Amino acid sequence: MDYGRFFQDAVDALKNERRYRTFAEIERDTQRFPHAVWHSPEGERDIVIWCSNDYLGMGCHPDVVEALCATAREVGAGAGGTRNISGNSHAIVELEAELADLHGKQAGLVFTSGYVSNQTGISTLAKLIPDCLVLSDALNHNSMIEGVRQAGREKAIFRHNDLAHLEELLQAAGDRPKLIVFESVYSMDGDVAPIGAICDLAQRYGAMTYLDEVHAVGMYGPRGAGVAERDGVMDRVDVIEGTLGKAFGVVGGYIAGKAAVLDAVRSYAPGFIFTTALPPAIAAAAVASVRHLKASGAERARQQAQVGKVKRALDLAGLPQLDTETHIVPVMVGDAEACKAASDMLLNDHGIYIQPINYPTVPRGTERLRITPGPFHDDALVADLARALTDVWNRLGLAFVPRAQAAE
Amino acid sequence: MDYGRFFQDAVDALKNERRYRTFAEIERDTQRFPHAVWHSPEGERDIVIWCSNDYLGMGCHPDVVEALCATAREVGAGAGGTRNISGNSHAIVELEAELADLHGKQAGLVFTSGYVSNQTGISTLAKLIPDCLVLSDALNHNSMIEGVRQAGREKAIFRHNDLAHLEELLQAAGDRPKLIVFESVYSMDGDVAPIGAICDLAQRYGAMTYLDEVHAVGMYGPRGAGVAERDGVMDRVDVIEGTLGKAFGVVGGYIAGKAAVLDAVRSYAPGFIFTTALPPAIAAAAVASVRHLKASGAERARQQAQVGKVKRALDLAGLPQLDTETHIVPVMVGDAEACKAASDMLLNDHGIYIQPINYPTVPRGTERLRITPGPFHDDALVADLARALTDVWNRLGLAFVPRAQAAE
Repeated sequence: MDYGRFFQDAVDALKNERRYRTFAEIERDTQRFPHAVWHSPEGERDIVIWCSNDYLGMGCHPDVVEALCATAREVGAGAGGTRNISGNSHAIVELEAELADLHGKQAGLVFTSGYVSNQTGISTLAKLIPDCLVLSDALNHNSMIEGVRQAGREKAIFRHNDLAHLEELLQAAGDRPKLIVFESVYSMDGDVAPIGAICDLAQRYGAMTYLDEVHAVGMYGPRGAGVAERDGVMDRVDVIEGTLGKAFGVVGGYIAGKAAVLDAVRSYAPGFIFTTALPPAIAAAAVASVRHLKASGAERARQQAQVGKVKRALDLAGLPQLDTETHIVPVMVGDAEACKAASDMLLNDHGIYIQPINYPTVPRGTERLRITPGPFHDDALVADLARALTDVWNRLGLAFVPRAQAAE
Repeated sequence: MDYGRFFQDAVDALKNERRYRTFAEIERDTQRFPHAVWHSPEGERDIVIWCSNDYLGMGCHPDVVEALCATAREVGAGAGGTRNISGNSHAIVELEAELADLHGKQAGLVFTSGYVSNQTGISTLAKLIPDCLVLSDALNHNSMIEGVRQAGREKAIFRHNDLAHLEELLQAAGDRPKLIVFESVYSMDGDVAPIGAICDLAQRYGAMTYLDEVHAVGMYGPRGAGVAERDGVMDRVDVIEGTLGKAFGVVGGYIAGKAAVLDAVRSYAPGFIFTTALPPAIAAAAVASVRHLKASGAERARQQAQVGKVKRALDLAGLPQLDTETHIVPVMVGDAEACKAASDMLLNDHGIYIQPINYPTVPRGTERLRITPGPFHDDALVADLARALTDVWNRLGLAFVPRAQAAE
């Protein structure tokens, strides 16, 4: 039996569809972020990262790095076990208290990643609710889809952010238990869920709510707890899921909610029970980041300012961006090969790193460059970006849109 | 709808069955490992950890800690994105090359945890093999079971380490593609798979092999690549899975194998694609640990020596241990409540931390204290352990076994 052939065929299929992914090898630099070194096939090159999910640059913040190093020196590099078997570090217990406080909930529970939070969190919650119907937004992230799938419960997909459709499905479900799972900021389109209105529906039809805020925590709300905090509806959401790996700049995921709910997940979720705990040094770094962003609004304000400048610069250049109210700036290409070519040109000729976003991450025909401006992208870098994109658009013959007026 | 009740009921059920888990809050100390601080309800207490999966204490090794800190200072606390979108750090690329070399394979692929390696690795492999029958050892870890389940392929469970049964199932399967998934060291019983003989069967019946070495990497074989290396059969196993979170002392998991196989998993596995990459600092710490244990056999030799001493001391004390050829020393209690009581007494009265292992981690009636002696448990600590266990056995009226002769 030639097993190698199965795998080679699978890889070849992606190559034929122009979906084969090559990872750019990157070395960041805490002193110069978003500048970084690209280990290119031709050697090391200086580049600027414009597609990082370390949205606020907190991964390079001295308080965060020093918390990591100090804790590693004191207690070691790893946790040494699962949460149950010797891996329940003092630092991770502190982190969970910090996250509960951030979201105004009774308890927090940390997982090895946001992906695992959703996968084992949603599946465990839905399994613990008898006869649960899971109502899931059509654009939910893969980790949520896997969580819903693994729950093995009946599911109903509502059209993206469509309250009327959600209500229709809730009404049709009758009196049975229901769990609504959705995101606040959708990562690829940068649009935002009507959280309050979804909570209204949940209340009217007796459903429980699970909200993924991974692209919002740290960045929205007075203490950086996310869009639900910004909208004043955080207390109405039953379970909030977040990540420590994006705006908080570290790694790991979590959920926050009522103590009994989290105690049940803690006690039943296989992806929580049977895995080595996050290192205490990582937990301590996350605590430092969360605490900093609770108290400081400077990073958020500066991010919003630079995001606004990027959007304006691209408008003025006539580049086709998706209109968003968030920090995510998708510039639309609409073709897999052109999208890859644009990304390659930006990197090779302009030292600008923006990974192409192709199917299956986004639907075919909506391929894009997803730009995530942060507080460290200064005005000169913003101008460079607009110039470089314009050059690439011209060279590839990509379509411009009518330019906005400079006065706007 | 009272959702709280569902979760409270689930937690109460565990309490009624004496299966509710309480996590001891621990603060390790790189300078004094395995000594640590226990944050007990009554305050801080000095304890000795005897149940760590940081089997060789590498999490406290200065080279490992310094690699972590140096890299964090240079490049930051987190990776900043998925492997595809800005998270493919230089350090993680180096780590994968190091792991490929460790196992003598063409390529390595790193995941956020060993759990995720198995879950998304096995399910992706089995999905990519048309009409694949998965043959799975009955005692495989939960992460492997979840991987097999999520593959959605037909499966056949063979009795634990039972070659005759495995052959029977292989024979019955005929010519279809087959994937055998098994472990080298089984974590709770400490027994070892006949890897070479399983590879013989795989060859005879045209099956592919996937071997979990998480409780063996770092500790067996001349370069610490695991039991397959020790047995001289590493090149016969198709995919080897390991962890960076146990003997290597950090966190994360990986697989190693042929380039085409790993490229396919890299390209198709959702739990790899859609998650933030391991931080470069963690990758660098893991590289330091793997390199150290490739070159140095001192930790392995000292571990084996201290494991031997513990086994002898418990034999002499008449304590009922499961006979193992590995570093895992299960002392059998056989009752959930007594096991918890023994663990509590050891911790409270002797400052010895050994978490009780109860159902569902082990079958009911086989509850145990799982002891993992390492190179830093000196002879005085070994003597303390035997004395403390004897005291607890006497106080709880637990059964002793005939004592071994001191001369043996």
